[in-house]
Amino acid sequence: MADTVDIIKKLSDNAIKVDKFINSTLVPRKPEILYDASRYLISAGGKRLRPFLTIKSCEAVGGDPELAIPFAGGLEILHNFTLVHDDILDNDPIRRGSPSVHTKFGVPIAICAGDLLFAKVYEAMSYYASPKVKNKQIRKCIEIASKATIEICEGQVLDVSFASTDRVTEDDYIFMVGGKTSALFRACAEIGATVGGGRKGYVKALGKFAYDAGIAFQIVDDILGLTADQKTLGKPTGSDIREGKKTLMIIHALSKISKKDLKVMRIALGNRRASKDEIKDAIELVKELGSIDYASKKADRYIANAKKQLKKLPDTEAKKDLTELIDYFTQRNY
Amino acid sequence: MADTVDIIKKLSDNAIKVDKFINSTLVPRKPEILYDASRYLISAGGKRLRPFLTIKSCEAVGGDPELAIPFAGGLEILHNFTLVHDDILDNDPIRRGSPSVHTKFGVPIAICAGDLLFAKVYEAMSYYASPKVKNKQIRKCIEIASKATIEICEGQVLDVSFASTDRVTEDDYIFMVGGKTSALFRACAEIGATVGGGRKGYVKALGKFAYDAGIAFQIVDDILGLTADQKTLGKPTGSDIREGKKTLMIIHALSKISKKDLKVMRIALGNRRASKDEIKDAIELVKELGSIDYASKKADRYIANAKKQLKKLPDTEAKKDLTELIDYFTQRNY
Repeated sequence: MADTVDIIKKLSDNAIKVDKFINSTLVPRKPEILYDASRYLISAGGKRLRPFLTIKSCEAVGGDPELAIPFAGGLEILHNFTLVHDDILDNDPIRRGSPSVHTKFGVPIAICAGDLLFAKVYEAMSYYASPKVKNKQIRKCIEIASKATIEICEGQVLDVSFASTDRVTEDDYIFMVGGKTSALFRACAEIGATVGGGRKGYVKALGKFAYDAGIAFQIVDDILGLTADQKTLGKPTGSDIREGKKTLMIIHALSKISKKDLKVMRIALGNRRASKDEIKDAIELVKELGSIDYASKKADRYIANAKKQLKKLPDTEAKKDLTELIDYFTQRNY
Repeated sequence: MADTVDIIKKLSDNAIKVDKFINSTLVPRKPEILYDASRYLISAGGKRLRPFLTIKSCEAVGGDPELAIPFAGGLEILHNFTLVHDDILDNDPIRRGSPSVHTKFGVPIAICAGDLLFAKVYEAMSYYASPKVKNKQIRKCIEIASKATIEICEGQVLDVSFASTDRVTEDDYIFMVGGKTSALFRACAEIGATVGGGRKGYVKALGKFAYDAGIAFQIVDDILGLTADQKTLGKPTGSDIREGKKTLMIIHALSKISKKDLKVMRIALGNRRASKDEIKDAIELVKELGSIDYASKKADRYIANAKKQLKKLPDTEAKKDLTELIDYFTQRNY
């Protein structure tokens, strides 16, 4: 419990510094509506998990965390850019309990706001980076960020395409999450470690740590989507089922399900007009089929693998923070 | 005439090299549909005006044009990214006589395809740049590209917002075009000159040249949109009027128009269901009000200013090419 309080305090301290940077790069200009739309989601707050990963990876290799801030801020902006566009793709009217950007500002402005945020990522890393960061490091960071974004786009399209088919394997899911979530986690760790001047082996170990942590994080997020209440989630419980998302649990459940139960599942899965009770029945089925336990064990395996990577690094306060981070974000209360 | 043949040949020679680079960076991966959508527009060809501007700016300051190719290719990819998203914003079903990306692949895939292209821009400049280009130059180029994209987003949102109001001044128009078209032209010239190792004064002069050339180019493009035939344009004559675009000519015409004629204009302007004849009547009005002549003279002034900037550079073959380029692309046959 002391650890949890500790990590929350550290996250919040980092968030303040990162938000200060983000605010300074997103100063409104003309046209006002574009900047309102671009700032709307990112100003609503968030745990700033990815910046924390960036800054702590910098520290874990002995780097100066101050130098990592524009990169950490840039990567949070990158994350927000993907959320803005992702909500359009998924036709999601709500994000974190509030209207999503395209619901509030319309699709055209939301597309432009995402694009603006994406451009800001590279401005942050090139223009706002401290002169103390070597140009060679900056070039490497930009390469990492661009390659990660390519993987994110691939993951997003896979995620959308999975909604319209049942033939999605567990490998497909892991590959999709690898792009959609883990690629950015890995980029955060690698960029932090690169800015920190870490040797190749450390950069690689931190990248692998973050990649596996990302997969565990996504699995747990998917689990909570079925088990947590609407207030905690900021959206209705079981939204993934309504949207036809092929999460690890759904893939597992579909592989075990009886013909009779499949009919119950079909009523809810991918049916945007499914009633609360129909969704509830589908969630019950997923539970009964042991799919939540299955996914939970999978997550544990990724967490263990992630932690193994951290062993390759020298013992530091930052390394301890990264361990606590993964524990904190993969907690399941169900 | 000899000059025209010459510049067409040079454009085409450059396009071959640039396209070879673009193809090598856009190698298909999973998911196939994302790469199909990303390659669709850029593979359909084009004059590769922006890459030419990049490469010739590099040469004009004494640089090795080969080094500029990944940057030139990256900037063409950047241009294509903006076109893909712009067609969604404008609800344009057709681009260069073929279905636009979102018409062919749907809006979600088109958004992701644009995002992928945008990520590829920075991959081109960081990962694909020759080791002969200094990291300091790469950092500067990325800064220029990101700032230009910010201006493009601003310009696109202004352009969209102008469609729903008549209170658009000539200054507003020039500011919008400055973002939407000229910012990228300037970035091409500045990046080419930066990669070429040009001194600050030359980089600046080439940037100003390209900025003014871009405004002239856009004005001429708008003029042709009202005067050229559908076959040349790849879309119906007068589409801008149908979409309610506030071009320089429309702004001029609205400031001169009589109450009676305003009624005729209103039938066509911003009315997507306007008939061919109604559009024709509106174009006639624009002509009668002297708005095309007015815009044409404006374009001439920007062309003259652009050429003035070139005088600051040493006399080279590349400088001659840039002069011919602006002449070629601002030709008007009406």
